[in-house]
Amino acid sequence: MRDFLPADKSRRERVLAVIRERYRAHGFDEIETPVVEEYDRLHAGIGGDNEKLSYNILRRGLDADGIRAAADDPAALSDLGLRYDLTVPLARFYATNRGQLPGVFRSIQIGPVWRAERPQKGRYRQFVQCDIDVIGDDSARAEAELIAASLDTIDALGLDGGTVRVNDRRALDWMLDSFGFAEEERPGVLITIDKLDKIGPDGIVAELRDRGAKASAVDAFDAFLRRPQTMEYTPYGERQIRKALPEGAPEEIVAHLVGLGEAVAASRSAEGEIPLVFDPFLVRGMGYYTGTIMELAHPSVDYSLGGGGRYDGMIGRFAGQQVPAVGFSIGFERIVDLVEALDAGAAEAVVLVHDADVPLAELLAHKAALLSRAGRVRLERRTKNLKALLERASADGYTGFASVRAGESAGSLEVKPLG
Amino acid sequence: MRDFLPADKSRRERVLAVIRERYRAHGFDEIETPVVEEYDRLHAGIGGDNEKLSYNILRRGLDADGIRAAADDPAALSDLGLRYDLTVPLARFYATNRGQLPGVFRSIQIGPVWRAERPQKGRYRQFVQCDIDVIGDDSARAEAELIAASLDTIDALGLDGGTVRVNDRRALDWMLDSFGFAEEERPGVLITIDKLDKIGPDGIVAELRDRGAKASAVDAFDAFLRRPQTMEYTPYGERQIRKALPEGAPEEIVAHLVGLGEAVAASRSAEGEIPLVFDPFLVRGMGYYTGTIMELAHPSVDYSLGGGGRYDGMIGRFAGQQVPAVGFSIGFERIVDLVEALDAGAAEAVVLVHDADVPLAELLAHKAALLSRAGRVRLERRTKNLKALLERASADGYTGFASVRAGESAGSLEVKPLG
Repeated sequence: MRDFLPADKSRRERVLAVIRERYRAHGFDEIETPVVEEYDRLHAGIGGDNEKLSYNILRRGLDADGIRAAADDPAALSDLGLRYDLTVPLARFYATNRGQLPGVFRSIQIGPVWRAERPQKGRYRQFVQCDIDVIGDDSARAEAELIAASLDTIDALGLDGGTVRVNDRRALDWMLDSFGFAEEERPGVLITIDKLDKIGPDGIVAELRDRGAKASAVDAFDAFLRRPQTMEYTPYGERQIRKALPEGAPEEIVAHLVGLGEAVAASRSAEGEIPLVFDPFLVRGMGYYTGTIMELAHPSVDYSLGGGGRYDGMIGRFAGQQVPAVGFSIGFERIVDLVEALDAGAAEAVVLVHDADVPLAELLAHKAALLSRAGRVRLERRTKNLKALLERASADGYTGFASVRAGESAGSLEVKPLG
Repeated sequence: MRDFLPADKSRRERVLAVIRERYRAHGFDEIETPVVEEYDRLHAGIGGDNEKLSYNILRRGLDADGIRAAADDPAALSDLGLRYDLTVPLARFYATNRGQLPGVFRSIQIGPVWRAERPQKGRYRQFVQCDIDVIGDDSARAEAELIAASLDTIDALGLDGGTVRVNDRRALDWMLDSFGFAEEERPGVLITIDKLDKIGPDGIVAELRDRGAKASAVDAFDAFLRRPQTMEYTPYGERQIRKALPEGAPEEIVAHLVGLGEAVAASRSAEGEIPLVFDPFLVRGMGYYTGTIMELAHPSVDYSLGGGGRYDGMIGRFAGQQVPAVGFSIGFERIVDLVEALDAGAAEAVVLVHDADVPLAELLAHKAALLSRAGRVRLERRTKNLKALLERASADGYTGFASVRAGESAGSLEVKPLG
């Protein structure tokens, strides 16, 4: 877990302000849930591997006997835990509050989550997630709104040229079925396919054979992976989708994916190609996805900047009634590292350097006068190394400086540009 | 702990944006620390009663033997905990990062804290604190900057007319000494005096006698409380301070308090009286205060809207070197309840009501076109009760609506005002 010093914190807040503003513009509304949820809800089998990484909170009021008894039932030590994602809390929130929410509810959630991962470069145990979700809409309108809002947001952060890789869990399922994989082995096969970017087609086929997947199905898959393909680029649309899938793909799935492209194209006021790429091998890890799956890509990096998918089954587990839902999580921690310093706002920021013997009231009157015309004022006692002081202020986003000595006229101070 | 629905969440974020902006204007810089701190640090005796209210996180990887052993040493069950305030984490942050911070460091911290309090009206187990602190400045300049920034902030939230009650722990100590209370009984006497607003002078004297405080000292205190006083109002300054204290108050303390008033007056660009009130019985609970103590009051409510004080000893416990510090915590949860809906921004927010059979691409093109001229657009499928739909949108801050039916011209939609 990390401390954020002023320069980093300020950049993070500016990026969050842009994300909030763009998501709100697209008709999403921000909500907030407590960071602590009930233990049983966090361990209901929905969170996948993240459940094992959760931080659990020690139940209060346990006495020595209670602790001893928990040796055989460690779950009894906790009644609460820190959330490991924003999706499980959203499902709980919707079940609790649906009477007060519109029929189609478009939520924004921005907040920290915790996972007890082994520390490694670029991974933190506390990190911020930014999710948007559409609950109560089973049409591709929902996916298109999520994609348009997400692309618009990274555009506004200076990361234009983003694209979204899309697939559909139903297409994956049909494809594995068409190769001949049995239903019960498909989840394992998907885990292997998910590694395609890392280990390549040969690695995939080898791993499938190693894990004892049905040999004839692996052969069929292998042949499909090695089929001759022209290197000709095809823009997103029916032709690209049909080319990328084995022959005979169900019309309903193809129509859904084609319609999604048209909807996204209509959502973008900018001219140009549909910013989607159909990827028949996109899997995304979570077991709860039921339809469209999406991943945000940008030419400047080889990792994804976010992703999401449709999870029509999950809300029903909490709400007791099936409700369609689809979500998209923008990779805030990755994006904040990519975004160069955003303009901190046009208002002038002034450092007021003063001698130690300037009377306090006089000094503060100068500060108040500057504050009435500048956006931001910081007092700094003059040091021998004035240059270092001003350089630091400049790094902190200050744009001008003024100087005051004891006994100087109380008139208006001259502000000089910094750096 | 609470869920925040869109209307509440939006108000909270707007209030936070004002607080951030005003604090930054006054030269403070925002930082962030993890919400989780080490167990030992949270239980180092600095947090007062809050230490007992902390949520502790279950140590990971405990086996049955480890759990059984903890029956005799429950602290072994936790290695981390949720922070119960922002002051202990700030002291830790400063010790960790001081090499990268300016000599006088003015911090903003905004974030949730957790206390396992018994649930009661208006008290929550997760709540947001907004603290500003000045570390490294032992002059009244620090207090004056905190007070000016805090008053400016509540002004900007529409709560003008605020005042700050001030006292000094050294004045309290001198006063109790002058009545004859022994040094070791003074902490207990302060706990009683802290209840003056609730139980009145008679209650205070009775409680002091009950707890067996030195009788002659209680008599002297009683006489002081009952001394004849004119009802004449005296503005903040030397005269009010001398009138409020027993005779013979140390000149150094009086001069500090008078100087603080002059500094605050100079910090406020608005004309008018010094917005301070000297209150010789102001105590504030935390044991770590060493000098000035402050409490923010507003004529619209009979509870405080924030407070703080000087705690010159605490940073040294983490940094290994004495560093003066003073902080002010604005009561965000109380203030957010007082602040009426702030202007959500001038940009138009439009609800686009559509028939179910409008083709998806056509609908999203309308949305994109509206978005290019309005600040915010939400799609709503037309329902039988259009009035209810529009009323809800109006409550959510939408200011206009447009309507689209299938086959209508794709030209520009007319936006009508809502409500």
